[in-house]
Amino acid sequence: MQLKNNFETVRKRSIHICAPLKTEDYVVQPIVDVSPPKWHLGHTTWFFETFLLKPHLPGYTEFDPDYNFVFNSYYESVGTRVVRTDRGNLSRPAVEDVMRYREYVDEAMHTLLDNPVSKELETLIVLGLNHEEQHQELLYTDIKYILGHNPLLPAYDKNKAGIKTVEDKREDFLIMPAGIYQIGHAGEGFCFDNELSRHSVYLQDYAISTQLVTNAEYLAFMEAGGYSDFRHWHAEGWDWVKTNQVKAPLYWYHVDGQWQHYTWQGLQPITPDAPVCHISYYEAAAYAAWKGMRLPTEFEWEAAAPELSWGQRWEWTESAYLPYPGFTKAPGAIGEYNGKFMISQMVLRGGSEVTPPNHSRITYRNFFHPPLRWQFTGIRLAKQNLFI
Amino acid sequence: MQLKNNFETVRKRSIHICAPLKTEDYVVQPIVDVSPPKWHLGHTTWFFETFLLKPHLPGYTEFDPDYNFVFNSYYESVGTRVVRTDRGNLSRPAVEDVMRYREYVDEAMHTLLDNPVSKELETLIVLGLNHEEQHQELLYTDIKYILGHNPLLPAYDKNKAGIKTVEDKREDFLIMPAGIYQIGHAGEGFCFDNELSRHSVYLQDYAISTQLVTNAEYLAFMEAGGYSDFRHWHAEGWDWVKTNQVKAPLYWYHVDGQWQHYTWQGLQPITPDAPVCHISYYEAAAYAAWKGMRLPTEFEWEAAAPELSWGQRWEWTESAYLPYPGFTKAPGAIGEYNGKFMISQMVLRGGSEVTPPNHSRITYRNFFHPPLRWQFTGIRLAKQNLFI
Amino acid sequence: MQLKNNFETVRKRSIHICAPLKTEDYVVQPIVDVSPPKWHLGHTTWFFETFLLKPHLPGYTEFDPDYNFVFNSYYESVGTRVVRTDRGNLSRPAVEDVMRYREYVDEAMHTLLDNPVSKELETLIVLGLNHEEQHQELLYTDIKYILGHNPLLPAYDKNKAGIKTVEDKREDFLIMPAGIYQIGHAGEGFCFDNELSRHSVYLQDYAISTQLVTNAEYLAFMEAGGYSDFRHWHAEGWDWVKTNQVKAPLYWYHVDGQWQHYTWQGLQPITPDAPVCHISYYEAAAYAAWKGMRLPTEFEWEAAAPELSWGQRWEWTESAYLPYPGFTKAPGAIGEYNGKFMISQMVLRGGSEVTPPNHSRITYRNFFHPPLRWQFTGIRLAKQNLFI
Amino acid sequence: MQLKNNFETVRKRSIHICAPLKTEDYVVQPIVDVSPPKWHLGHTTWFFETFLLKPHLPGYTEFDPDYNFVFNSYYESVGTRVVRTDRGNLSRPAVEDVMRYREYVDEAMHTLLDNPVSKELETLIVLGLNHEEQHQELLYTDIKYILGHNPLLPAYDKNKAGIKTVEDKREDFLIMPAGIYQIGHAGEGFCFDNELSRHSVYLQDYAISTQLVTNAEYLAFMEAGGYSDFRHWHAEGWDWVKTNQVKAPLYWYHVDGQWQHYTWQGLQPITPDAPVCHISYYEAAAYAAWKGMRLPTEFEWEAAAPELSWGQRWEWTESAYLPYPGFTKAPGAIGEYNGKFMISQMVLRGGSEVTPPNHSRITYRNFFHPPLRWQFTGIRLAKQNLFI
Repeated sequence: MQLKNNFETVRKRSIHICAPLKTEDYVVQPIVDVSPPKWHLGHTTWFFETFLLKPHLPGYTEFDPDYNFVFNSYYESVGTRVVRTDRGNLSRPAVEDVMRYREYVDEAMHTLLDNPVSKELETLIVLGLNHEEQHQELLYTDIKYILGHNPLLPAYDKNKAGIKTVEDKREDFLIMPAGIYQIGHAGEGFCFDNELSRHSVYLQDYAISTQLVTNAEYLAFMEAGGYSDFRHWHAEGWDWVKTNQVKAPLYWYHVDGQWQHYTWQGLQPITPDAPVCHISYYEAAAYAAWKGMRLPTEFEWEAAAPELSWGQRWEWTESAYLPYPGFTKAPGAIGEYNGKFMISQMVLRGGSEVTPPNHSRITYRNFFHPPLRWQFTGIRLAKQNLFI
Repeated sequence: MQLKNNFETVRKRSIHICAPLKTEDYVVQPIVDVSPPKWHLGHTTWFFETFLLKPHLPGYTEFDPDYNFVFNSYYESVGTRVVRTDRGNLSRPAVEDVMRYREYVDEAMHTLLDNPVSKELETLIVLGLNHEEQHQELLYTDIKYILGHNPLLPAYDKNKAGIKTVEDKREDFLIMPAGIYQIGHAGEGFCFDNELSRHSVYLQDYAISTQLVTNAEYLAFMEAGGYSDFRHWHAEGWDWVKTNQVKAPLYWYHVDGQWQHYTWQGLQPITPDAPVCHISYYEAAAYAAWKGMRLPTEFEWEAAAPELSWGQRWEWTESAYLPYPGFTKAPGAIGEYNGKFMISQMVLRGGSEVTPPNHSRITYRNFFHPPLRWQFTGIRLAKQNLFI
Repeated sequence: MQLKNNFETVRKRSIHICAPLKTEDYVVQPIVDVSPPKWHLGHTTWFFETFLLKPHLPGYTEFDPDYNFVFNSYYESVGTRVVRTDRGNLSRPAVEDVMRYREYVDEAMHTLLDNPVSKELETLIVLGLNHEEQHQELLYTDIKYILGHNPLLPAYDKNKAGIKTVEDKREDFLIMPAGIYQIGHAGEGFCFDNELSRHSVYLQDYAISTQLVTNAEYLAFMEAGGYSDFRHWHAEGWDWVKTNQVKAPLYWYHVDGQWQHYTWQGLQPITPDAPVCHISYYEAAAYAAWKGMRLPTEFEWEAAAPELSWGQRWEWTESAYLPYPGFTKAPGAIGEYNGKFMISQMVLRGGSEVTPPNHSRITYRNFFHPPLRWQFTGIRLAKQNLFI
Repeated sequence: MQLKNNFETVRKRSIHICAPLKTEDYVVQPIVDVSPPKWHLGHTTWFFETFLLKPHLPGYTEFDPDYNFVFNSYYESVGTRVVRTDRGNLSRPAVEDVMRYREYVDEAMHTLLDNPVSKELETLIVLGLNHEEQHQELLYTDIKYILGHNPLLPAYDKNKAGIKTVEDKREDFLIMPAGIYQIGHAGEGFCFDNELSRHSVYLQDYAISTQLVTNAEYLAFMEAGGYSDFRHWHAEGWDWVKTNQVKAPLYWYHVDGQWQHYTWQGLQPITPDAPVCHISYYEAAAYAAWKGMRLPTEFEWEAAAPELSWGQRWEWTESAYLPYPGFTKAPGAIGEYNGKFMISQMVLRGGSEVTPPNHSRITYRNFFHPPLRWQFTGIRLAKQNLFI
C-alpha cells in the first residue's frame, strides 16, 4: 500500500510541476542539456514500461512501439534512440499523447501493485520513483531555462517566491579534526549505486563554512574584478569566461544600473542575503581562490554534513566524480545508471529548493560538468585549519 | 474593394494551411532553414504592422513592442532580432497569442483599407501579400520537413494527394533558335524588384525539354551508380554527397527492398511517372551531366516558357542569382528585400504544387543555395541544339 | 626547340621565386587556401610525371610511388591523396627531396622533348606549363601570406618594390554602346577549356572605369564608415565582416595612427595612388554600392578590355563562374581541370603584378570564392550609361 | 659546479634528441597537442631568459624582444603570446635562429652560474631544468607523432629499438593491506608543487598487478570485440570510439593481415611481450572493465610503488588531477605552473622509456586529458582484495 501510495504521489507531482505551462513550453530544447518537459514526462514513464511492465506484468501491451526510440535517454542496451540534440525537433508525440501514455502506464502499474511484489521488483520500482524525482528537479531547471531564455521573460508562477536568505545565519566555520571518517551509504533505505560501498576515508584537519556564499558576497567578487583577473581561474575556466564573455551568474541581467535576475516570478532585483545560485564549478572555484580558500571535498562535506544546514543549493565540491572502493555496476541496462558517467564531472552535494522533499541525503552524490550553470548550484567554502 | 478582398483571401489562406497542425507542430525548427509555422504566421503579420500600420494608420497602437524582436526576419534597418537559429527555442509567444496578433493587425488593416489608399501604399500592401504568399509556400515546405523528420512520420492530411504524373506528356525537346530575347518583367502587374528591368539577352541555339525528369528516370540514375561516380558532380557537390552520405532525394527511404517517400499522406511508394522532387542543385546538375546534357539558364527557360507547361516543381537553372542590368534597390528597409541575397545562390524558375495560385509567373526568379532540398525542386534538361 | 626552351624557362622561374626563402618557409600552411611552397614545387612536377612521363616516355621509372599520394591536388581519377588541410603537417618529403624530384623529372622531360612530339603531347605539355604558371602566381600569394602572418613580419626581398600608382591615369569612364559582342577565346594560341567556346553576348549600354580604385579612394570608404554600414553589403558579406571583425583590406595594420601594410619589403606605409589590393568580392561590391555604381560583368570587362589598361590587380566581376554555351570537358583526369569548380565562385578578370609575363589574356577567366583576399585582387567600377 | 654541470648536461640533451631531424621536421604541428620541435627548443630557453636572466643577471640584453610573444607557452602573467593552434604556422624564427638563441642564453646562464647563486635562484634554475626535462619527453612524443603521421612513415633512428618485454616478469598481484599511508613528496630533493604537501590517506585492502598489460593481452581484448561492446566503456569514451572510429592503439596499422606499429625504426610488427603503449584513459579503463578489474588510484599506486618495477609506461590511474590538502601556488608567474590545470584531467604515475633519466620519482604526478594517446601511456590493473 505504501509503495502504491508513493507511486501515485510521485507520479502526480511531475504533472503538478508542469501545470503552469502552455502546450508550447513542453516542446522546446534551447540547449542540449535542457530537455523538453514532455520528454521528461515520457521518459520517466518509459522507465516503468520498459523495466517493470514489459518484463513483469503478464499480458501487458506496449502503448506504442515507436516510443522506445523517442523516450530512451541513454540506455545502449535498450535499442537505438533519438539523438539527444534532436529532442527539441520533435513536435510529436503531442503533449496530450504523452499524457495518455502516462495514464496508460500508471493504470498498468496499479494492476502490478495491486498484488504483492517481490523484493527485487520493489527495488526496481523504488529506483524508478527516485529516477522520476531526479527528473522532477530537471523539470524545474529546464522549465526555468526555457522561460528564462525567452525574450519575453514570462513568469512561471507569479506567486512562487525563491529563497530570500541563507538558512544558517551563524557566521562561522565548523572546525573538523583530522581522522578517519566513514563515507557512503549504510542502512536499509534507498540509495543509488554510486553511494556504495561505505568505506573509511582519512581527512586532514579542516574548517568548513556553516553558510553558503550570498549574492552580496558574490557581488563583491564581481565588483573587485573577479571575472577579469585570470589568477583566480583554472586555465579552462578562464577560456570559458573569455569565450562566453561571462560577467555574472546565469540569469543575471544588468538593467538600468542595477543587477536583476530571472526568477519564477519573472525579472526581479537581486536579493542580497539569498545564497548565490546558477554558478559553474569554474566560478565557484574562482570565488574560493579569490577569498584565499577552497571548496570542500565531497568527503569533507559528508563528514561535516550532520552539523550543517544544507539543501538550498547544490554545492560544488573539489572532488571529481569517481567510483568508491568496491563500486560495482548492476548487470543489464540498470547498470548503465551511474557508472558510465564517472569521468570528467565534478561532485555536488546537498540539494536545492527544487529537489523533491526527502529525495536527497548526506551521502547523495550529484554530478555535473564544470561549466554547467542551469542547475541550482551554489558555493560553500572550506580551508585547512591552521590553528589546530 | 478588390484589394481588401485580396487581403482577406491571402490572410485566411495562411491559417488554412496550418489547420491540420497540432499546437506542438507550430513550435519546432529542426534545421536552420525551416522556421516554426507560428513564426511564419507572426512574421507575415509583423510585415503589415511595421511597414503599413505603424507609419500609415494614425493612432495605431503596436500589439506588443517585444514582437519586433521576435518576428523581424532579416531587416537590419528595423532593429535587433532573434538569431535565426534560435527561432525553434521560443515557446512564447504561444500560438494563441500569434493568432490574436493576426486578428488585431487584420482588423487595423481593414480600417486602413476602408479608406482609399495612395498608389504608394497600395504597392506596399501588394508587396506584403506577395510576401505572405511566399511564406505560404514556406509553410508547406517547413511543415513537410517537421512532420517528415519526426520518427513517427505522421501524415499532414490523409486526403491530400501529391502529383502523380508530369503534366506535359510530349516526349520531346523544344528547339529554340539563336537570337535576342527580351527578359524580365514588363507591364502593369506586380513583380518583385529582382525581375527588373526588362532587357535584351542574346541566346545561342538551344533545345529544352518539354517535360520534367520523372522519378523513374531519376531512379535509373541512382541504379546506374550516379551517387558513387565523382565524374558527374561538381567538386563541392561531391563533397556534399560524401559528407552527408546522400544516396537518394530527400524524403526517400529504402524500406523492405522498395523505395518509398514521405508525402502529405505519410510514407508511400514512389510514383514512377511523377516529376522527381526535393533535389539539390548538385543532384540536378549531376543528373544532367550523366545524361550528357545540362540545365537551362534562367534566360533560356524564360524565353521558352510560353511554350512549356510548368508549375509542378521549382526548376533549378544553370544561372547564379545576380542583378539584372539596371537593377536598383528601393530606399529604406524594403530595399533589403532581394538585392542583398544576390550572391552564392542559384536561380530556380517555374513554381510548384505548393506555390499559391497565381503567385508565380514566367519572369519570377526564385533562388536557393545549391545544397538545399526541402523545397519542391525538380529538373528540366537542356542542350545545345546541334542540328540547326 | 621552342617548346624545350619554354619548358626550361618556366621550370626555372618556379625555383627563382623561392630563392629568398628559408627551408622552414617551404613547409607551413597557415590557412587551408595557402599551400606550402614545397608542395607547389612537387605538385607541378607531379603533373608532368603523371600526365606526360608515365604514359608517354617508354621505360620511365617513377621517382617515388608515394609521391602521387602527397602531390595529387584534387584529381579524383588519379587515386587517393593527402587531405588538403594536412599539407602543412608534412615535414617530408624534405625540400631537398623535392628539388631532386624536380631535377629527375626535368631530365626525363628533356629526353621526351629531344624527340619530336605529337600535337596531342604538345598540347598536354603546354597545359602543364600554363598550370605551373598558375602555381607560380600561387607561390607568390602563398609566400606573402606565410611571411605576412608571421609575428616577426620578415621581408621577402628588401629590394622588391610593389606597385606605386595605377597604370592608367585618365580619370574617366569608357562609354560602351549596347549591342552584340563576341566573348571567349578564338584563334590558335593556348587557352583553358573554360574560355571556350567563343559566343555572342548582348550587352546593354554601359560605362566602365579606365582606372582601378586606389588606396586613397578605398580609405575614403573606410573613413566614411563603410565597414559599419550594412546597407552597402550583401547579407553574407555583412556576416563575414562581423564574424571576422574586418575593418580594412588584408595585410593592413593601423600602427601609431597610420595605416601601413605588409609588402615584399616588410611593413610599409600605404601608398595612396597605388591600386587597392587584397580585397574580397564582398568588399569590392560594397565599395561599388557605396559609390552608387557596381562591378562590371565579365562580359562587359572583356568587351572593353582592348581599350583598358589592365594587369595590376585581378579585378572582381559581377559574374558567377559558370560554363559558356557549348562548354565541354576533356575526357579523363584532364577534364577535372576546370568544369567541376563551376559553382559558388565569382569570376576575376585581368591579371596582377605576380601573374607570370604573357600568362593572362583578355579572355582569361580566373575565379575565387567571394570571401578570399590573399590573391592580388582589386576593384574596377562600372555603371549603366544613363546618357546614351 | 654541480648545478652548472647539470645545466650543461640537460641543455645538450635537448639538442641531442633533435639530432636525427631534418630542418623541416622542426616546424610542423599536426595536432594542437603536438608542438613543433623548434618551439620546444625556444620555449625552454625562453624560460631561463624570462625567469633567470632578465630579472637576475645585471646588464643582460634580451636576445630578441619578439621572442616572448613566440615562445611563451601559457603564462598569462608574461604578456600575450602566439595562439597555441598557430605554432605550426610559423616558419620563423628559423631553426638556426633558435639555435643561436639557445647559445646566447646558455652563455649568459654560464655567466650567472660562474658566481655563487642564492638558494632562491638555485630553486628557480632547478625548476627550469626539470621543466626542460619535461619538454624533452614531449620532444620525443611530438617527434614520434610528426614522423608517425607522415605518409612516408620515415624512421627517426634505424638503430633505436623500443621496449621488447615488460620489465617485471612476476605474474602476480601485490596484496596491500588496508591502512593509513603517507602520500606526497618529503625530503630535500626537487619536486613540483603538485606533489605537496605530504599527507595521510586511508586505503582499503587492494591488490595491484606487478606487471603492465602487454600487447598480446591487449590484442586479446581487441579480438574479443572490446572496441565494439559499449558495456566496457564510459559514455564519453564510447562516443570517442565511435566518433573517431578507434579500433586499436595509436600507431597501430593492420597491414597484410598482421598488426604492425610505427616505431623509432619505422613500421614494425607488434612485439607481443612488450607493454601496450599509446593508450587513452578510456581504453585503459575499458580494458580493466573487460578484465573485471579497475585501474589503481594514484594513492594505491604510490603506496605500492616501492615494491613495483615501474618506468616503461606512464600508467593511467583512476584519480582525477586535483590539489593535495594544503596545496598552495607560488606567487607570480611561477604559480601558473601546475595549479591552474587541476580540472578535467587524469593522473598518470610512473614514467616511460622517453622520460629523462632520474626525472621521475614515486611521488611524481603526470596528468593528461582522458582521450590523449600520443604519450607513452600504458595499463596496470588493480582490484579490491576480496580474500583478506
